[in-house]
Amino acid sequence: MRLSRFFLPILKENPKEAEIVSHRLMLRSAMVRQQSAGIYSWLPLGKRVLDKVCKIVREEQNRAGAIELLMPTLQSAELWQESGRYDDYGKEMLRIKDRQDRAMLYGPTNEEMITDIFRSYIKSYKHLPLNLYHIQLKFRDEIRPRFGTMRSREFLMKDAYSFDLTKEGAIHSYNKMFAAYLRTFSRLGLRAIPMRADTGPIGGNHSHEFIILAETGESEVFCHKDFVNFDIPGDNTDFDDVPALQAIFDKWTSAYAATSEMHDAAEFDAIPEGDRLSARGIEVGHIFYFGTKYSEPMGAKVLGPDGKEHTVHMGSYGIGPTRLVPAIIEASHDENGIIWPRSVAPFDAMIINMKSGDAACDEASLRIYESLANAGKDILLDDTDERAGSKFATADLIGVPDQIIVGPRSVASGEVELKDRKTGERQTLTIEAAINKLIG
Amino acid sequence: MRLSRFFLPILKENPKEAEIVSHRLMLRSAMVRQQSAGIYSWLPLGKRVLDKVCKIVREEQNRAGAIELLMPTLQSAELWQESGRYDDYGKEMLRIKDRQDRAMLYGPTNEEMITDIFRSYIKSYKHLPLNLYHIQLKFRDEIRPRFGTMRSREFLMKDAYSFDLTKEGAIHSYNKMFAAYLRTFSRLGLRAIPMRADTGPIGGNHSHEFIILAETGESEVFCHKDFVNFDIPGDNTDFDDVPALQAIFDKWTSAYAATSEMHDAAEFDAIPEGDRLSARGIEVGHIFYFGTKYSEPMGAKVLGPDGKEHTVHMGSYGIGPTRLVPAIIEASHDENGIIWPRSVAPFDAMIINMKSGDAACDEASLRIYESLANAGKDILLDDTDERAGSKFATADLIGVPDQIIVGPRSVASGEVELKDRKTGERQTLTIEAAINKLIG
Repeated sequence: MRLSRFFLPILKENPKEAEIVSHRLMLRSAMVRQQSAGIYSWLPLGKRVLDKVCKIVREEQNRAGAIELLMPTLQSAELWQESGRYDDYGKEMLRIKDRQDRAMLYGPTNEEMITDIFRSYIKSYKHLPLNLYHIQLKFRDEIRPRFGTMRSREFLMKDAYSFDLTKEGAIHSYNKMFAAYLRTFSRLGLRAIPMRADTGPIGGNHSHEFIILAETGESEVFCHKDFVNFDIPGDNTDFDDVPALQAIFDKWTSAYAATSEMHDAAEFDAIPEGDRLSARGIEVGHIFYFGTKYSEPMGAKVLGPDGKEHTVHMGSYGIGPTRLVPAIIEASHDENGIIWPRSVAPFDAMIINMKSGDAACDEASLRIYESLANAGKDILLDDTDERAGSKFATADLIGVPDQIIVGPRSVASGEVELKDRKTGERQTLTIEAAINKLIG
Repeated sequence: MRLSRFFLPILKENPKEAEIVSHRLMLRSAMVRQQSAGIYSWLPLGKRVLDKVCKIVREEQNRAGAIELLMPTLQSAELWQESGRYDDYGKEMLRIKDRQDRAMLYGPTNEEMITDIFRSYIKSYKHLPLNLYHIQLKFRDEIRPRFGTMRSREFLMKDAYSFDLTKEGAIHSYNKMFAAYLRTFSRLGLRAIPMRADTGPIGGNHSHEFIILAETGESEVFCHKDFVNFDIPGDNTDFDDVPALQAIFDKWTSAYAATSEMHDAAEFDAIPEGDRLSARGIEVGHIFYFGTKYSEPMGAKVLGPDGKEHTVHMGSYGIGPTRLVPAIIEASHDENGIIWPRSVAPFDAMIINMKSGDAACDEASLRIYESLANAGKDILLDDTDERAGSKFATADLIGVPDQIIVGPRSVASGEVELKDRKTGERQTLTIEAAINKLIG
């Protein structure tokens, strides 16, 4: 992509409304724009990152055996009256009347609808276990939306729902998502710690929040510092292997970890002082096992191998991609801007043509651009006529991992400069060597 | 994907509510499920097709230089008061009050919001031309939603918006989308004919609908039969080449084509009788040039090269992926089910294990499955214990292009049968030959 043809309206000044660094950097780098309170557009740079986050979330859901569908954003009130949550949910639920005066709502979550889908089609245990997920917009009418897309009203959520014949089966389904989440966050460059959690309005009796540590986190969390070194389940993880998945769960819940709501000071104080970690945390995922809380009132039953009807055991598993993007920034930035993990960077590399219009610089920039693009890399070429200083600032701000600096002096000797955004290291290489290095 | 682990709850009987064949087939093959009037879930099989359609739409938008972003579904009423459409839009607009009693709406289209984004950031002609698009849910509260996702209330739309300094520039932007649409529909296996169109509530003075011919089309259309043979712009189309794009537009508007609203019987009758085509049509795309209709009241201006302020010229360009899926089915099916064009098929091929549990059949099925999957093919393996007749019916119903039939007799001699869903042709091949043929 040539910057002259892209839409990247960088803000030169810090927006006043931004209270935390991710919000400030997302506005300055034109990743998002607020359209109404807590409602955002994802501008082209932000959309690219959001897509990469969703892709990783999706790959790990699929790997764990979950099946993707897409439920609508608007739901009928009747479904929620069946589960009893229509009245419970309160003002966070956006209630809508359509032209026929039917009571609708903008889904804040989908337990009811997925249970309705399940009961309409599945009548036998033979089709279990089943885990269905979608990545869809949700709306929660927060009284005080803030921190940009970290706590917005319209937001994207991956929500998966598992169905099993027995509690034991449901625990294995839970463990699959537990392992999938560890892998997902790791691939996003985050170290997330699962913590015992309150189940809130979803309900249920077995639940973990996945928390990343960041200074600007909304809540205080407490854990054993061993978590920093626990192994992430590998590519070869067999999600059908019940004991192996249980072992992953057991390992990752073997040390103390709790949010302030669930904190037990006595238990925490029993940890040797040097091993205690007390920090701010950001919730990036939440998983629940809630048994028959929805299947019972909504009549989601299957015939078992014993020929009798059984109410299915369910769980739900959420990750918010529109929250993950700022969470990654909170965990990875410096005073000059964002430092993207390679897995979610909006571009793999950025070519900075320091002197657009200069024939040698233009030619070298284009040559590098085409070589890398042909090798399947996603490249941003700054071919604008901004001054060099401003180009460097933009490159640092948007945080693309590799910068290739093409200046008239180095190009005259067939060389360019390579800068690593994360370490700041620079090296001068021939154009060929630079291309080869970036193709890897 | 193994069918035993997929979610494909085929309906054995024809659903009574379905009036047209695509609706019937989409319900029977469990592609979609109605959740409320005109509001659908896309079940896993349908989601796969929808994703492939969106991917092609996206690739052709990108090729034509449009830049993707993502605007939210909910909009503030204020924006629509600025353009004057808040009152005009009528009951099709779903109006919402949030908890703070602010007037919101579920976007039926995004001209106002994109104009607002544009005016907030772009101040100079140097950033033009610009074309921004998103693929996002829309809601139009139709009084009578029908025909499944062909005319639903919540639906997915790709809407692009172009911004140019001059009318001439805007016409080129229009021609780019015109050519991109021809390519898009062609890749989807459709022959779409651009027809002069009424501009409706979007407004403006230059507009074409893209219509595919299908017996169950909603409206009557009239055109010269030459359209069936016009060339589709090739992969090497240069979207920056103004005369070349104009030539494509001129060619594709050189013969008579009109919907019933715009029909001129005298002009049509002037065509030799054997060259007249009068048929039912389905609208699958709609493009508009509307000049300064939104930029003027909303103040979207840039400084021109003359140092003066100019109100930008705009166009908008819509395609509905959730409508394209049934449109493709209307154009491609037989009495046994759907016949997917390869480009959007939910799977490339389906392996039918006629005798699951038989060691030789299981082994051969798995071997083919793994060979094709390793070659990057998307394969559905029917490993269920349904009887063979039911498996064949399911395979024909869901319309995957290639069927590989693994039966005990043929497997004993190292062979399988290959069936082409479209032609019905069958051939017996060795397992190796079948694999090689499908890898291509």
